[in-house]
Amino acid sequence: MDKKIKDNIRKLRDSSKVAYVGSVNGDGFPQIKAMLVFEHDDLRIQYFSTNLSSKRCAQFRENPKACVYYCDKGRYKGALFTGTIEICEDRETRAMLWRDGCEMYYPGGIDDPDYCVYKFTAKTVNFYSGLSNTTASIDELYE
Amino acid sequence: MDKKIKDNIRKLRDSSKVAYVGSVNGDGFPQIKAMLVFEHDDLRIQYFSTNLSSKRCAQFRENPKACVYYCDKGRYKGALFTGTIEICEDRETRAMLWRDGCEMYYPGGIDDPDYCVYKFTAKTVNFYSGLSNTTASIDELYE
Repeated sequence: MDKKIKDNIRKLRDSSKVAYVGSVNGDGFPQIKAMLVFEHDDLRIQYFSTNLSSKRCAQFRENPKACVYYCDKGRYKGALFTGTIEICEDRETRAMLWRDGCEMYYPGGIDDPDYCVYKFTAKTVNFYSGLSNTTASIDELYE
Repeated sequence: MDKKIKDNIRKLRDSSKVAYVGSVNGDGFPQIKAMLVFEHDDLRIQYFSTNLSSKRCAQFRENPKACVYYCDKGRYKGALFTGTIEICEDRETRAMLWRDGCEMYYPGGIDDPDYCVYKFTAKTVNFYSGLSNTTASIDELYE
């Protein structure tokens, strides 16, 4: 994968406050939800905080297939990561992703019983910009 | 469905320049792409223009299960429509969705062989705003 494309993917994720997370429901229909991006550390493993009681947590436990999409609407650029999501309830992961302000959603803090973390592991990434379009394994991003 | 929620869903779609369209690929993974919204006529049937040669057209022909998501990131509001997508190549539908500027993508105009239209038929809609969350059949929106 071209260095310029790698840089573009990284820049797009770094500047994104929101990601669009895709799942497949029990009837086989795709579902999408916007989620806040609290960390930009790694492209292979990406974390999102969410409600353990949500419908989507149950969906991911049934079917871990997922995607995470970042886009720059104004510039017709997008990066689509495809992989799987695991629901993490361990304290270490919850503490790692905790940010000031999270208590608005989880009044009980890091140990709030409704707070959990999606751990997304990417397998492939697709990047488009204008008419160019590239798909590669996630490992190629780090070569 | 509450009148206020119906109004919110309609307002959200009316003000959206972009929708996030979900599909399921041949390996069963969800996929997302941002698409321009050229019409806001009906919530039951929604149209999007796209490239006939794209991977996603082939995906929808294999598996028509789809979703269309609109969101107001700043206000934590979102409307997720779940349904099916049919690929339309007939001139009437292509002409109906054609807008000034489309020739940038389809230099051959309405009859460009790579221009086609997604016809999305919604079955259900989910709307969330803050912590409230409602799912209903699409017909309830029109009751």
